[in-house]
Amino acid sequence: MTDASAPRIHLGPVEDPHVADGIRRAGGVLVPLAEAEGVVWVQGPETFPSALPDSVRWVQLPFAGIEPWFDAGVIDDKRVWTSAAGAYAGNVAEHTMMLLLAGVRSLPEQLAAQSWRKEEFDPRVGTLQGSTVAIIGCGGIGRALIPYLVASKVKVIAITRSGTPVEGASETLSADRTGEIWSKADHFVIAAPSTSATRHLVGKAELDQMSESSWIVNIARGTLVDTDALVDALEAGSIGGAALDVTDPEPLPDGHRLWKLPNAIITPHVANPATTLTRVLADHVAANVARFAAGDDLTAVIDPSAGY
Amino acid sequence: MTDASAPRIHLGPVEDPHVADGIRRAGGVLVPLAEAEGVVWVQGPETFPSALPDSVRWVQLPFAGIEPWFDAGVIDDKRVWTSAAGAYAGNVAEHTMMLLLAGVRSLPEQLAAQSWRKEEFDPRVGTLQGSTVAIIGCGGIGRALIPYLVASKVKVIAITRSGTPVEGASETLSADRTGEIWSKADHFVIAAPSTSATRHLVGKAELDQMSESSWIVNIARGTLVDTDALVDALEAGSIGGAALDVTDPEPLPDGHRLWKLPNAIITPHVANPATTLTRVLADHVAANVARFAAGDDLTAVIDPSAGY
Repeated sequence: MTDASAPRIHLGPVEDPHVADGIRRAGGVLVPLAEAEGVVWVQGPETFPSALPDSVRWVQLPFAGIEPWFDAGVIDDKRVWTSAAGAYAGNVAEHTMMLLLAGVRSLPEQLAAQSWRKEEFDPRVGTLQGSTVAIIGCGGIGRALIPYLVASKVKVIAITRSGTPVEGASETLSADRTGEIWSKADHFVIAAPSTSATRHLVGKAELDQMSESSWIVNIARGTLVDTDALVDALEAGSIGGAALDVTDPEPLPDGHRLWKLPNAIITPHVANPATTLTRVLADHVAANVARFAAGDDLTAVIDPSAGY
Repeated sequence: MTDASAPRIHLGPVEDPHVADGIRRAGGVLVPLAEAEGVVWVQGPETFPSALPDSVRWVQLPFAGIEPWFDAGVIDDKRVWTSAAGAYAGNVAEHTMMLLLAGVRSLPEQLAAQSWRKEEFDPRVGTLQGSTVAIIGCGGIGRALIPYLVASKVKVIAITRSGTPVEGASETLSADRTGEIWSKADHFVIAAPSTSATRHLVGKAELDQMSESSWIVNIARGTLVDTDALVDALEAGSIGGAALDVTDPEPLPDGHRLWKLPNAIITPHVANPATTLTRVLADHVAANVARFAAGDDLTAVIDPSAGY
């Protein structure tokens, strides 16, 4: 049954089934572009219409980082634009937990084995139980990671810009106190934004303070870690290991030293992969369609004048 | 300061620092065997004293499975004996979560790569977000696993003998309804006890009902899965994969077909490894020392007449 007051949404450039379902769940009806009040776009700016009907009052973009959309000149000030900021935090947190567990529990060497080497591996499998994990830049991804860590009885130290207590963390420190954590935590999750201030946040001085069993997980941007200093520490065995979904340089070139290290885990920037993108986006879209219908403020509104 | 009423505990055969700390935290004092009221043992039965002083009213053993202690004739009916049943559930749940995530998110093939194959892997990395996971035999380990799954927004179907609702599960089914889940859940965690009724709980008929992206994780006993049927399904690609910390036969012999499959993850029965055993045991011991001091019932009391 179509309600005359139901929001008329155009879904393009393809009718992705997960997102279509999300729109319908929220009470929206799918319409051609010419009849739309709202547009939900599930691909990049290349395929975006060069002009939108005046009836379109809202556009939902599919990515959290929207620089390419500004570069393409797509975003105007005639309507409200929303990004997918925050929508993928849960998926990235899940990848982060996998990387941390795989490192601490020595999965790579067990996967490489072709025989039952229990006596050899038994003393090398660690646990997160009772350890301390620092989350540097504890925003949406860090907050989504905390419940996994709490399930492993981990003590979480959250670092945020302001130091305002993060729920579930044992302790929250403001960013200016980051220097305190390197000798204090067992493992480190890098989830901070990439700025001039966070470049090489983890370098030789920080690595030198970590323990021989410490793992670093980077799911933010490669430049937050000084790759040369990291590789030196990994080769020397002065830290437990590093699990990186992002690298510097990225893509990591063939033959790079990181590829050969047994205590490095590399995944090629797939924490929020294409396979699951629209499945995860669907909930974010559904929530915004419901808010649009009710006339409420939308989530993740883009500020065209600020460029984000 | 030593309190005359503090429980006098002998820790042997070595003074493990984690367990020693647990005993002291609970108010106990460490004493030689001849002066002990309680004994906490952190190794196998081979090194256990052939006779205990009559003053010893309680013995804490370090393992959950205590058959070897009965076989060695160590357990008598002159005092209370406790096992470590339940102490390791959290650690095994953590390993289970790692195996499930590594499978669903295609970690093995990414680890094997020596170049940045983002385009190839991006569509092959899955997510647990929004999926349904069945835990077959949802006891201590399953209950410890649920918070991780809930963090990934998973719908949990718990199977228990009685079907009494398990906290955190969306649905709990009694064991006689196990047949319903194979086509209903996306992934399967095998955590049931090994009995004649659970032998080959997962065989050809069950595998045939699963989807092409389904992962099976077995952290219970190898015999719960029909290995030949599983290998056939893995070779055919009719399921996503299998992650096994236990196998049948176990140890898995060199050259076995399972070693060569890219969609099989094998860890050699290390979900609760030696490295972390005493660290995890410490909390269990501390709780029992506190109960012993207070005269309360101890946790995981062994029944010598029943043999468990």
